[in-house]
Amino acid sequence: MRMYDLIKKKRDGDKLTAAEIEYFIQGYTSGKIPDYQASALCMAIWFRGMDAEETTALTLAIRDSGDTLHLAPTNGLRVDKHSTGGVGDKTSLVVIPIVAALGIKVAKMSGRGLGHTGGTIDKLEAFAGFRTDLTTAEFESTVERIGLSIVGQSANLAPADKLLYALRDVTATVDSLPLIASSIMGKKLAADDDCIVLDVKTGSGSFMKSVEDSVALARIMVDIGRRAGKRISALITDMDRPLGNTVGNTLEVVEAIETLRGNGPEDLTELCVALATKMLVLAEKGDEATCRENVLRVIASGEALQKLADMVEAQGGDRVWVTDPSRFPKAAHTHCVRAPRSGFITRVNAEEYGRAALLLGAGRNTKEDVIDHTAGLRLIAKTGDYVKEGDVMVELFASDPSLFASASVVLQNVTEIGDRAPASRPLIFDVID
Amino acid sequence: MRMYDLIKKKRDGDKLTAAEIEYFIQGYTSGKIPDYQASALCMAIWFRGMDAEETTALTLAIRDSGDTLHLAPTNGLRVDKHSTGGVGDKTSLVVIPIVAALGIKVAKMSGRGLGHTGGTIDKLEAFAGFRTDLTTAEFESTVERIGLSIVGQSANLAPADKLLYALRDVTATVDSLPLIASSIMGKKLAADDDCIVLDVKTGSGSFMKSVEDSVALARIMVDIGRRAGKRISALITDMDRPLGNTVGNTLEVVEAIETLRGNGPEDLTELCVALATKMLVLAEKGDEATCRENVLRVIASGEALQKLADMVEAQGGDRVWVTDPSRFPKAAHTHCVRAPRSGFITRVNAEEYGRAALLLGAGRNTKEDVIDHTAGLRLIAKTGDYVKEGDVMVELFASDPSLFASASVVLQNVTEIGDRAPASRPLIFDVID
Repeated sequence: MRMYDLIKKKRDGDKLTAAEIEYFIQGYTSGKIPDYQASALCMAIWFRGMDAEETTALTLAIRDSGDTLHLAPTNGLRVDKHSTGGVGDKTSLVVIPIVAALGIKVAKMSGRGLGHTGGTIDKLEAFAGFRTDLTTAEFESTVERIGLSIVGQSANLAPADKLLYALRDVTATVDSLPLIASSIMGKKLAADDDCIVLDVKTGSGSFMKSVEDSVALARIMVDIGRRAGKRISALITDMDRPLGNTVGNTLEVVEAIETLRGNGPEDLTELCVALATKMLVLAEKGDEATCRENVLRVIASGEALQKLADMVEAQGGDRVWVTDPSRFPKAAHTHCVRAPRSGFITRVNAEEYGRAALLLGAGRNTKEDVIDHTAGLRLIAKTGDYVKEGDVMVELFASDPSLFASASVVLQNVTEIGDRAPASRPLIFDVID
Repeated sequence: MRMYDLIKKKRDGDKLTAAEIEYFIQGYTSGKIPDYQASALCMAIWFRGMDAEETTALTLAIRDSGDTLHLAPTNGLRVDKHSTGGVGDKTSLVVIPIVAALGIKVAKMSGRGLGHTGGTIDKLEAFAGFRTDLTTAEFESTVERIGLSIVGQSANLAPADKLLYALRDVTATVDSLPLIASSIMGKKLAADDDCIVLDVKTGSGSFMKSVEDSVALARIMVDIGRRAGKRISALITDMDRPLGNTVGNTLEVVEAIETLRGNGPEDLTELCVALATKMLVLAEKGDEATCRENVLRVIASGEALQKLADMVEAQGGDRVWVTDPSRFPKAAHTHCVRAPRSGFITRVNAEEYGRAALLLGAGRNTKEDVIDHTAGLRLIAKTGDYVKEGDVMVELFASDPSLFASASVVLQNVTEIGDRAPASRPLIFDVID
């Protein structure tokens, strides 16, 4: 087999076999196939696409390019959720304690944030002492004992995806549905779950800008998951505005705690309930109405909140912070962005809000950047709200007050104010089963 | 400017500016732009194509990536011919002495052969002592004194083309018309000619397999040349069978000498007369009929043959070999390939005949291979000829008799014999002015 022939075959619109795709992924991961051939193939895939069989073969080859997680057998099904990434998305911190409180085991491997989107691991590290680098044995025993654990991705999980993504990122081949789907699902399938709920974001703050593309991506991923023997569903959810009211690690953790207490923002609460309900349904914990009822019950009873506290404690943090969030360190400086005119807020561009949080120190531009957990922003006025000139629209938090200027400019430029209330946009666009 | 943006722009079907194309070629030649971005761009160009302005800009950027030849001013116009490469193509050895005998200056830089196609430089080195590495001053003074000189390409002529071609060769992006056209014309324009006649081959032994593709390539190259201020024409000529009767360096030189004596094979003679006539017309040496008459005259008079002898002498060879070709060293061993059945030869696959000559030692598989000048083959029967079972079809020449077996197998497999004479195929398909 020669890489040249694979490139030519795909370039000419022919279908690659599973053996050819494995040859490519193994050769590329081991360094035998050079970057310049891999990038030519990615560009040919960008133009020609891949069918369901090819995309599944690529996903499985990415999964098998490194370690796969094999946890000790457990009672019942293991369930995971995965978000394609957004701004202000703290749903994992809410959803996982909820389903764990209902007897479902969650052994989640999660990523760090990069660019304008945040990562669950960074958020959890807002708890002083929280360890995301458990050994596999510690991870297993935590899941067995308390029913949930969230750790960072093993360095050797789907290494082909890391290499390919870095290459695609600099060769304009990121936005290809089969390449995106296989990248996400290759990592997901390397974990040892029975059921997967995908939260496929759509809108400015997400990777997929249009609902159509998000639905297409979701369908491909659900198809791949099913071919790999998983129970899997996807929700298509809004990411044109930030989710909830906060962006930034400590701010988001505190908002997740409020949501687990039943006091969260409406959009975040609604989405978390929907995701948790879908996870329970997939795990055969009853019909949708029953599952939803149970979700609401463990929020109201405080059982879900206690599961979060259990996990914080099990992984080295202080559980008291969960019941008393005033213990979290706070940013030294705050600043308010005010409305330049009166009117309805017609659009809050999620991507730009993510970028503003990044400028305040809440995220990373490069993998080496250090995060300021206390930095971020809180939306006081959201899309659809009426503001008067001079009203506070956004509250900013930073350790260095010189960072406020550029973040304020970004926010003032992208927050659109009009004379009429905007048409409402749904939170959940579609469900793909 | 960022290479990423150029890749994305072309990928999305937009037109690159001349400045963007220069940025790419300069950056790639200097090593600032990595192979993996260049190959992604080449693949995007393969899919999207380039318009005439883009292709011209790419050609000029390739031309300007290294040295360009600037010869001292001369009386009259300097004319060159360029073949896209074929099997048995020894036309330069015939055509250049002819036009030089008619007062046209030819300062030709030529390449070496690789794979199944030969190179003029390799053929000339069949003359013992022939120097193809003249200094620019020697090159200039030879042209001024005797009117013609052929040397090897300067190492720093169009270096971007060398890099890009090597990359395209392993990433399935060779067969793109704008990339082929800019590669050929980038090198051509780096030389200091006023008029260019292109011999664009078509058929199995050439790069372009179909007449349509060859015409399209010729039109693009003629357009580029004209935009760069050159007088330029192209002939579309057959390369489905070898040109003339011989393949291999010494054999071809001797056949060229025979052609200059008026005793050459019909197809080779016809093509050489047509090319020389076109060069004279471009250089304003009269109308086509007059020029053709003059061409035939300097062949008949022996003046053209003497020009070849002048050049051989000026560049270190022995002019007597031109008038007495029996002086050339001969292969130690010969072998005959015979007809396996009686019938008409319906096809002589040029590419495979080139490959057979390569197997005998006449060419190079890699740039480092050493050529056996005496090796090669002579077609005794050509397309359209009737042979009886056991008749000699091809005579093989090699220094090592163990090489005959594999070359014979190739030739027996690809020489088609049928019951009816094949339809005749033209030698010159089209002329693009």
